[in-house]
Amino acid sequence: MKLTIIGLGLIGASMAKAMKATAHIAGVDESSRIVRQALEEGVIVEGSTDMAVASGSDVVVIAVPVGSIVDTARKVIRHIDENTVLTDTGSTKARIVESIDLDFPSFVGSHPIAGKEYPGYAHSQADLFRGAMAIITPAGNTRQGCIDSIKRLWESCGASIRIMDPFVHDRLMAVISHMPHLLSYASMRLADDLRIHRQLLGAGFRDFTRIAASDPVMWRDIFFDNRDNILPLIDTYMEELKHLRTLIEENKAQDLQDTLSSYAHIRRALYGHSR
Amino acid sequence: MKLTIIGLGLIGASMAKAMKATAHIAGVDESSRIVRQALEEGVIVEGSTDMAVASGSDVVVIAVPVGSIVDTARKVIRHIDENTVLTDTGSTKARIVESIDLDFPSFVGSHPIAGKEYPGYAHSQADLFRGAMAIITPAGNTRQGCIDSIKRLWESCGASIRIMDPFVHDRLMAVISHMPHLLSYASMRLADDLRIHRQLLGAGFRDFTRIAASDPVMWRDIFFDNRDNILPLIDTYMEELKHLRTLIEENKAQDLQDTLSSYAHIRRALYGHSR
Repeated sequence: MKLTIIGLGLIGASMAKAMKATAHIAGVDESSRIVRQALEEGVIVEGSTDMAVASGSDVVVIAVPVGSIVDTARKVIRHIDENTVLTDTGSTKARIVESIDLDFPSFVGSHPIAGKEYPGYAHSQADLFRGAMAIITPAGNTRQGCIDSIKRLWESCGASIRIMDPFVHDRLMAVISHMPHLLSYASMRLADDLRIHRQLLGAGFRDFTRIAASDPVMWRDIFFDNRDNILPLIDTYMEELKHLRTLIEENKAQDLQDTLSSYAHIRRALYGHSR
Repeated sequence: MKLTIIGLGLIGASMAKAMKATAHIAGVDESSRIVRQALEEGVIVEGSTDMAVASGSDVVVIAVPVGSIVDTARKVIRHIDENTVLTDTGSTKARIVESIDLDFPSFVGSHPIAGKEYPGYAHSQADLFRGAMAIITPAGNTRQGCIDSIKRLWESCGASIRIMDPFVHDRLMAVISHMPHLLSYASMRLADDLRIHRQLLGAGFRDFTRIAASDPVMWRDIFFDNRDNILPLIDTYMEELKHLRTLIEENKAQDLQDTLSSYAHIRRALYGHSR
């Protein structure tokens, strides 16, 4: 089968590396240097900065930043017909699925729950999706054959599949992923002059702030795209901080202990600990 | 040398395990079951629920929760004289050092930067402090001999030493440790109904929320004790969230990207990455 991957960054190049034994892989990237490198390293067998190479593909994957997915889809659609199944790998889904579905019926959105703070071809790896979940977000009218084809694609990369409505996906991801990133970024406002105390930073600080090193352009686009879900969550979170602030200021020992206990309980229940 | 450790929880029992080859260790805990277990397992050679066993010690370590350290010090002081050096392991220092220093001149506060989400004797381990930092926070009038003695104690446990003013310590820890814990706890307010989506939780969520599983009583006491530093930091953080909220709501692409970039830059600089 012919698989074209548009965007040879962390996600796209990792897919190519995972699939190269079982598919004829064409790669498209706006950087001709990256295309050349991927060809030289045997990660792709055909490569170009031009989307025309997608022509005749069984599957096309758009693995570019969230803010560019719809535009990229519009461009590549000119080179393929409905026998090609088109998917993307964006971290938000509602707006993307709605837009592309109108133009191209063989589109199925997807989102692999995998990544690292450091983006780019250089950090790609064949086993990035092994043991990960891939969420597939069909629209109401998406054909089952297209869904099955994208399911097989992610399974071949080593991922397990979850099918989900695009709006449910975005609401869930706002809590699971987008808010943690926003809150971790914001905590850097407090950490500006810590460099001289680097040796004192413990595992708690390191893990809590790890995602603040994430790619700013990617996350800017995600925050904009999922604004409708994120803004109310920011409000709820600020309400909660205000509440905790009052408990601390007014020395409400039992209330504060109960609140922290309920939160510790939620965290422990999520990860299956007994306490 | 005779070393008495009061409180055989994660920190106290880990110290006992680290030091048992080189010191005669007496252990005190309010739970007679824990004392008996520590004796049976050879972690301590003398044990009691009564602080009188501290009598004649070269060093006494108070390893009880922050909220009980000053009370515990008052009780143990009756059984020791100035030839015994007294220290504690609390995560806050200003109030503790000020209080105990008045009553007992051979006191030197300390704080090992080590721990786990799960407290208690059962989770203690001999190598908990290996490669960690221990901060020693003398008062203005503390004798050098006492400082040196506590320095040697932590070095024997495998830690490196930093000497710091108790007030500077608390200001720094509010940023490095107390705020991340508070913010991680608060994020559980959003995560209450995630259990059915457990499989979708990625590494970002897991690491960001890990410290929300921390001991609620311990953290309640720390938040109260370091209130003066924590309350203004909560205000600054809420200001920052409001700012980010506005940028997202008003679609300020360049501003949001610049802000996130500056935060990613701070995080990357702290951990020595080039980007």
